[in-house]
Amino acid sequence: MTDMEFQLSAIIKCSGSLTGISSQEQTDFVQSCNASLLKKGAPSGGGAEIVRWNIAGEKIELGLVSDRYVRVHDALLRLKNELAKFLGKHRIGLRGAEIEDYQILMDWDEDWQLKKLPFVKQINQEGGRLKLSLDVDEFALANRIPDRIIKLLEDKKEAAKWKGKSEHWELLFESEKKPYYFDKDPTEEMAKRGWIRHAAGRGQFIYGPQITKIFRAFERILFEEIFTPLGYEEMIFPKFVTWDVWKRSGHAKGIYPEAYYVCTPKTRDPEYWEEVMDYYKVTNEVPLDMIMERIENVGGMCYAQCPPSWVFWQGKTMPDDILPIKVFDRSGTSHRYESGGLHGIERLDEFHRVEIVWMGTKEQVIEHSKQLQAKYRLIFEAILDIEWREAWVTPWFMAQEGKAGLSELKEVGTTDYEAVLPYSGKLLEFQNVSVNGNKYPKGFSVKLQSGTELWSGCSGVGLERWAAVFLAQKGLDQDKWPVKFRDVVGELPEVFRFL
Amino acid sequence: MTDMEFQLSAIIKCSGSLTGISSQEQTDFVQSCNASLLKKGAPSGGGAEIVRWNIAGEKIELGLVSDRYVRVHDALLRLKNELAKFLGKHRIGLRGAEIEDYQILMDWDEDWQLKKLPFVKQINQEGGRLKLSLDVDEFALANRIPDRIIKLLEDKKEAAKWKGKSEHWELLFESEKKPYYFDKDPTEEMAKRGWIRHAAGRGQFIYGPQITKIFRAFERILFEEIFTPLGYEEMIFPKFVTWDVWKRSGHAKGIYPEAYYVCTPKTRDPEYWEEVMDYYKVTNEVPLDMIMERIENVGGMCYAQCPPSWVFWQGKTMPDDILPIKVFDRSGTSHRYESGGLHGIERLDEFHRVEIVWMGTKEQVIEHSKQLQAKYRLIFEAILDIEWREAWVTPWFMAQEGKAGLSELKEVGTTDYEAVLPYSGKLLEFQNVSVNGNKYPKGFSVKLQSGTELWSGCSGVGLERWAAVFLAQKGLDQDKWPVKFRDVVGELPEVFRFL
Repeated sequence: MTDMEFQLSAIIKCSGSLTGISSQEQTDFVQSCNASLLKKGAPSGGGAEIVRWNIAGEKIELGLVSDRYVRVHDALLRLKNELAKFLGKHRIGLRGAEIEDYQILMDWDEDWQLKKLPFVKQINQEGGRLKLSLDVDEFALANRIPDRIIKLLEDKKEAAKWKGKSEHWELLFESEKKPYYFDKDPTEEMAKRGWIRHAAGRGQFIYGPQITKIFRAFERILFEEIFTPLGYEEMIFPKFVTWDVWKRSGHAKGIYPEAYYVCTPKTRDPEYWEEVMDYYKVTNEVPLDMIMERIENVGGMCYAQCPPSWVFWQGKTMPDDILPIKVFDRSGTSHRYESGGLHGIERLDEFHRVEIVWMGTKEQVIEHSKQLQAKYRLIFEAILDIEWREAWVTPWFMAQEGKAGLSELKEVGTTDYEAVLPYSGKLLEFQNVSVNGNKYPKGFSVKLQSGTELWSGCSGVGLERWAAVFLAQKGLDQDKWPVKFRDVVGELPEVFRFL
Repeated sequence: MTDMEFQLSAIIKCSGSLTGISSQEQTDFVQSCNASLLKKGAPSGGGAEIVRWNIAGEKIELGLVSDRYVRVHDALLRLKNELAKFLGKHRIGLRGAEIEDYQILMDWDEDWQLKKLPFVKQINQEGGRLKLSLDVDEFALANRIPDRIIKLLEDKKEAAKWKGKSEHWELLFESEKKPYYFDKDPTEEMAKRGWIRHAAGRGQFIYGPQITKIFRAFERILFEEIFTPLGYEEMIFPKFVTWDVWKRSGHAKGIYPEAYYVCTPKTRDPEYWEEVMDYYKVTNEVPLDMIMERIENVGGMCYAQCPPSWVFWQGKTMPDDILPIKVFDRSGTSHRYESGGLHGIERLDEFHRVEIVWMGTKEQVIEHSKQLQAKYRLIFEAILDIEWREAWVTPWFMAQEGKAGLSELKEVGTTDYEAVLPYSGKLLEFQNVSVNGNKYPKGFSVKLQSGTELWSGCSGVGLERWAAVFLAQKGLDQDKWPVKFRDVVGELPEVFRFL
């Protein structure tokens, strides 16, 4: 983004009339600012400049232009400090600045149209140039809103480049072909047998005793093969997630279309809610509009499981000798607003996941991700006997932030596990192992005593996804299952019969 | 509520002019309706009456009055059917009715003021009489809105009577006095030791390895003492709850001030959300107002745990020989918007509960609640060795619905378990056993093949509440704990240290 230009018109209000200051004094001040103050830090020939300076009673009408160095909002700040000193000599104070106009002009050869931008009242995009008229006040300038708008434009260019391109995908491992014992959709078959029933919500099931026992067998395998031998301890992570957590984890950048939002009452005073209750009692309909007026959004339901756990370590410094840290959580549900239509248990709005988190130095975290991968291979090969493959892919947060450099991708990234569902021939991602680099420790300010950078990794075991793959390949009849897994599950309970 | 009077003015529109119908014919019709049609089903002297009948072109201006029998909206419906037949003979059809005025008058000697009622445009309350002017159309009358307003008034009278009065409370059992080994607040002490840390949300904690291991020990006790010997099987209940479920469970009547509301995106189209994402990226603030415009309320987070499970059985008929049914769920969190201030783990917005549900005939359900109570006593006495008491109380849904008759209370009701927290001297309800009668089977239309009424019960074991009581009485040092419980817990893991 070269040839960037910034233009600012402002009126600076003072505490007294400025007419007593001589023209010469004013000219000297403006020239001195233009010569050094507004050029400091910029390459030769660059920086900002005062191009208009008129005094009218207690006001200064000011025009500033700049290139990308010492942008006009920075220039205004420098100028106000200098001006305060200058006017101080005349016993006049500064009252504040009113921003009349703020324009950004730059090269822009994207072939897609910008529609709307925050704090921008007019967008003019033609002939390879972009002109933005901003609607900003001093507070917005102090918050560096113009810089952030330019960062946003860079993000949008990057996202447009990515659009349509597939993410990085590199085969790491492929199991042998395995015999399939089933060619039906396991969700439909389970529903027929009364193992599951679609719940009242979208993409939500109620799990009966049989499939619950299978889920718990998966967990027992995790304990026996991973948690006990590798020294994991259980924790309980929160399941309601505040915006503050998602700001630190980065989810606040893009989670919106897929989130299940959580709102709390503006007050729990029963009188405030009486009208709602009365309306319900009289109509038997829940008055959703009346509710929306009485609640406020505070966050969402668990989406990625590990982010809210980081508050446990937030702002703390840990001694290096307790590393690597290995914990897991299986204390509740995750929720995603998935695309429409019925998908069965392989794509759900409400699902159950065991979340595995480890922390350490970069070397420890990478080393442990390899240990985990070896354990998973053992489970899929020797216990579940499924056909699967592993691929090295770009993790969501890197793609979204435009960090797709291959050099970083060698260490930070995600291994996806995919398996064929014979009934549809489609591949399903059924779990992942991610090395997240210093992303979370940085976001939540967690440090090591030695000053060494703390890294972390996470791995999500979706119980429904494991079941979807295993049952699709092996079927629902236990006599077709590998003996080792049958032994872990035990007998499937028969509790219900319906007429 | 005696001396009830209903007054209705309506204009009935017809398909043709009525001026050709003779006065005599009209008078005969009105007299005949007043004599029988509008009196049918009412005690002698009661019922409705046509008090005004004017024909003007294609319209009939109608006045109806009634007492509590054959209320004017029912009378209007009867009359319209009869009128259709009458006018049919003159080849004239009915077009519809416009309700000009609807008034309810009744005795009302409550000393509190009614402020606002749904579908009521004016409330006049004086001299022991209440006059309501309704704002209703034909559709509202067909939905029996006036009847429901009267039911609502009865509910409000009942609630006013209850207000301030304590609920039913009857001591059932009291343990022996036990020695306390601790006089501090366990939440504070755990926070000091790094066992827990307050999470980012209101009334929400993150549980470290030590307290998580204690929670899991509580679960293991439930398995060994209750689930395995009594033949329980595990299920997985939904954790997002739709309004439809809460309508059937009765929670939609009054849950509002305490609910954690769940909203979903109006669409997951990323373009619809781009403005929100851009705003966040430019300001680093989540634009809550923009979000509220883009989401809709669909229900709430799990509050009482068992209601959403009933969809598994909804509309089904079960053979009697599979009874009693015994299942439990421990698959996620419960959320309540509790009153403000910090309370520690004994009163939380987000908590963890094992929910126990059983079903059977009335006798089976009552019998099983006694078995459960015996098991709990064994656990509290022989394993946890705590001091507690049990009381028979009015369950929330009966209190709320004004069903407080003592005869019903003998069978349907809740046993609350309470224990002293030595650090504050306060009593804490730490679990319950409830016999819910036919409430849930009726609400979700679950039937038995024999036609016998299906009953159910539920019991919630709050892991934080058990911990709050046990740790408050016994302290955090394992050497003061009863040996049996120490054996179940095992060694407490030490994973973290902070500088």
